[in-house]
Amino acid sequence: MKRIVILGGGFAGIYAATYLEKLFKKHRDQYEIILVSRDNYFTYQPMLAEVVAGSLGILDSVSSIRALLKHTTIYVREISNIDLVERTVTLSPNFHHTDLRISYDHLAIALGNVTDFRKSPGGLHEHALAFKTLKDAIKLRNHLIDVMESAAIEASPEIRKQLLTFVIGGGGFSGVEIVAEINDLVRLFAKKYPTIIPSEIRVVLIHKKDRLVDKELSPSLGKYAEKLLIKRGVEILFNTELRSATPQEAILHDGTRIPSSTIVSTVPANPNPLVERLPLEQLRGRLITDSFLRVSGIDNVWALGDCAAVPIHNSEQISPPTAQFAVRQGKCLAYNIYASCLGTTQKPFTFKALGMMASLGHRKAIAEIFGKIKLSGFPAWVLWRFIYWSKLPGISRKMRVGFSWILDMLVPQEFVQLKAEVHNGITHLHYAKGETIFRKGDIGDFLYIVVDGKVEILDISNQKEIQVAILGKGEYFGEMALLKQKKRNATVKCLEDTELLAIRKNDFHVLVTNFGNLREEFHKTEKLRSQKKVAISEIGDILDLSQNDIPPHIRHG
Amino acid sequence: MKRIVILGGGFAGIYAATYLEKLFKKHRDQYEIILVSRDNYFTYQPMLAEVVAGSLGILDSVSSIRALLKHTTIYVREISNIDLVERTVTLSPNFHHTDLRISYDHLAIALGNVTDFRKSPGGLHEHALAFKTLKDAIKLRNHLIDVMESAAIEASPEIRKQLLTFVIGGGGFSGVEIVAEINDLVRLFAKKYPTIIPSEIRVVLIHKKDRLVDKELSPSLGKYAEKLLIKRGVEILFNTELRSATPQEAILHDGTRIPSSTIVSTVPANPNPLVERLPLEQLRGRLITDSFLRVSGIDNVWALGDCAAVPIHNSEQISPPTAQFAVRQGKCLAYNIYASCLGTTQKPFTFKALGMMASLGHRKAIAEIFGKIKLSGFPAWVLWRFIYWSKLPGISRKMRVGFSWILDMLVPQEFVQLKAEVHNGITHLHYAKGETIFRKGDIGDFLYIVVDGKVEILDISNQKEIQVAILGKGEYFGEMALLKQKKRNATVKCLEDTELLAIRKNDFHVLVTNFGNLREEFHKTEKLRSQKKVAISEIGDILDLSQNDIPPHIRHG
Repeated sequence: MKRIVILGGGFAGIYAATYLEKLFKKHRDQYEIILVSRDNYFTYQPMLAEVVAGSLGILDSVSSIRALLKHTTIYVREISNIDLVERTVTLSPNFHHTDLRISYDHLAIALGNVTDFRKSPGGLHEHALAFKTLKDAIKLRNHLIDVMESAAIEASPEIRKQLLTFVIGGGGFSGVEIVAEINDLVRLFAKKYPTIIPSEIRVVLIHKKDRLVDKELSPSLGKYAEKLLIKRGVEILFNTELRSATPQEAILHDGTRIPSSTIVSTVPANPNPLVERLPLEQLRGRLITDSFLRVSGIDNVWALGDCAAVPIHNSEQISPPTAQFAVRQGKCLAYNIYASCLGTTQKPFTFKALGMMASLGHRKAIAEIFGKIKLSGFPAWVLWRFIYWSKLPGISRKMRVGFSWILDMLVPQEFVQLKAEVHNGITHLHYAKGETIFRKGDIGDFLYIVVDGKVEILDISNQKEIQVAILGKGEYFGEMALLKQKKRNATVKCLEDTELLAIRKNDFHVLVTNFGNLREEFHKTEKLRSQKKVAISEIGDILDLSQNDIPPHIRHG
Repeated sequence: MKRIVILGGGFAGIYAATYLEKLFKKHRDQYEIILVSRDNYFTYQPMLAEVVAGSLGILDSVSSIRALLKHTTIYVREISNIDLVERTVTLSPNFHHTDLRISYDHLAIALGNVTDFRKSPGGLHEHALAFKTLKDAIKLRNHLIDVMESAAIEASPEIRKQLLTFVIGGGGFSGVEIVAEINDLVRLFAKKYPTIIPSEIRVVLIHKKDRLVDKELSPSLGKYAEKLLIKRGVEILFNTELRSATPQEAILHDGTRIPSSTIVSTVPANPNPLVERLPLEQLRGRLITDSFLRVSGIDNVWALGDCAAVPIHNSEQISPPTAQFAVRQGKCLAYNIYASCLGTTQKPFTFKALGMMASLGHRKAIAEIFGKIKLSGFPAWVLWRFIYWSKLPGISRKMRVGFSWILDMLVPQEFVQLKAEVHNGITHLHYAKGETIFRKGDIGDFLYIVVDGKVEILDISNQKEIQVAILGKGEYFGEMALLKQKKRNATVKCLEDTELLAIRKNDFHVLVTNFGNLREEFHKTEKLRSQKKVAISEIGDILDLSQNDIPPHIRHG
């Protein structure tokens, strides 16, 4: 029995498997098709923005891979390694500590790319919300509701402003779609809150170029989107970029600071680390293939979708990283693997994009078909819905989405959160120069460690700020309030752009009780600081903290 | 303006606010009604089991509190303190570090109880899944799918057995409902997996008494449920209890060990810590009130729902902690607060339960009405659906649930996970005597710290196990494989029941790089262990570990 292993459960992988199933229908006893996916579902990305907006149910945009691929062996696991010499793929363990190895005869790599803010400038990694997966969509929706709930009961005008400002970076395709949905959602949502005035809400779109969707659509449609968004209350800042994000503000390339608790960035699509690591020729992180989708320099390894640089036959171009191309490549790949197994002639990849569409919410969209026909407004929206609905995999998915749309017209939306998330033990934070981390009198909830940068500890008496210490790399602060359940007795401000680690109270407690040396370290710091009359540490009764002092919402995650 | 503050957004709190809104309709300029809830939604618990089973959508069982209560000020926050002297309630911070204080004229405490395994015996706290909130339901559903996906590709028969065994503790009301839904779900689900044989699946219900629903319903209905469940493949173990849970098995009171990765416990309902802390008279953690719902010994403080011990007028009884009573108490409370404000006569609480019903899945249920009429099977199920549907708050909720039920009949179910959860930095684990924590050759993913108990480190050569060390409280192991991305080079077994802390690789890395003394500690251990020829530690190049060595699924949560 020969094995065809597909890595990745996105558009490219799923469609490749679908066509392989059809072609190998009569050869099922000789060929096994295997698909490895991180999730047990396929995400239909064009509809994720509707999940955020709530016009679709949370699971409406995803389909069970098993239901789609009845004759494929599905492995739901993370991939930890691809060995091209041994011709095996290693999968990470789950429930047990042993990994799993699959050998292959043909390998199709369709791992897409990853949203990765790590290579982005200051703080985007820690504080910008991404928008790529179902998880991102749920997280974003929860965050929006969380911010509105907090703003509704906030008295301080500054904090209200920060909570009610939404910054979206990137005016390309998904940026325009998501800014439209966020804007509609928060403005509709605000009506439910008697304490929020619509004029308090600010939605800002930041774009590098001087017009929207400049890469994807013609200037007239970009202009249409721009006008429509502005009419609905979106501010658009052209020719600038997000430079940095902190828990309190978005900082732009030109130095502008926008106080905001919600920063969404659609920009970074980085190569999948698994693909990057392979000893194969790459073009900006994409595997180079010939026009038959065969990876250069190695036999029986194929690549397709966003992780592959596939030349289009009879043209000088490389396929763009879009779903349309991924689907067509899946079809071509299936044909070529089949041909290669049976010794018949392979076909080169050739395809011309049919068109591009972007939804603008509120029953408006923009579309460009065959590079010629331009549509905008309601007709484009009808087309958008119809085309994407018809492309949904399977009848049951189509029915579910159809029902959701009908329900959405009949029943008013409810803004409920989906609290499935657990707070992380240790969080990375980025603050900009001049920002305040906490103030005297605040609640102590985290211990902070300076990873990079400098902070100053300020005591405030008689309304004067007195600098009592400067802390740098490797030093920590905030442990006192945390241990004694007291309020902060000093203010901490950043002297430079600063990277911090924040450890939650209960995790901190667990560490200190279990590592003797760590306890000693805190004792030493305490002595030192009290000698310097810097009373920001007080570690004495660290061991008196009983479990009951930890608030229940933290204890239960 | 006087303030009536209700704490808690469950049945008691929501219905109290609803009736207060009606009664104070003409007095809105004089009285403000405030409700504080942890979530911005109200969970309709009777339908949570259907969410797990998938016949309802994920958000179908919850309603927006704001949509239900249009004239109440809603605070979505955790409560950190109730001060009966100052007459204020303090709410925990969110987004900012400052807390929020609300003063009250009347305080109605409706905080319910909490699922709290901490007081339960060994390991239930760490490894048993609860079933009370929407979050629990989503977590359970995800876990079931996760287990099935893992079993589908597992080769080891022992591990398969463990993955495909589901243990439910507690044969009361919710235990019976959830065991029925889990059993239906996993057996239906198994059909989608060609590699899972139905006979491999084991669903075990464990009950303390000698018949099901012994507290709630008559023996004949208990017997009916028992027969039905057994017919559907559930094993029922009477007269025993869950004693302990580990990542690998459920251990019963009589010493029976059932290998299982899924242990659900419905048993513990503990007093809310906020209520327990109040200096007020309590009956097993419930606030004692008079029959007017007034808390004994203090003015203008009221209690209702599961957190209150409310006597039923003209009877010797205390209200049972059920939704029916909570709703009725909400109505009575509203009336009495209104009477107290206007100086009219208050009413004592009186109510007779209408009946009890439990759904058994697959269109079967059991019901007992007015303590006389007994129903079982399909008629009881129709009654169950009709009654609970009619009690759903609001028309839009009714429509959504109705639509979901229709869709469920028309469209086959899809088993997709909802991956919104982030893995916790530090996890507590409980292992029983004799269990293996990891084996030589396993993948290194966690560092373990012994909190209590003893483990032995075993080296295996020539198929012989040689004990190389015994570790106890405060000692740790497993760091070597973790740092070098190697496989485990020793096996670790428990000599006693053992409590462990497991720290994930990347969190461990973060700690070690940032705390100098911790690094030293590891260095010392390494030396010591290598002197003893116990090569379970190897810390040398701890600082060489670059971010890229951390697998991406951990990095991105």
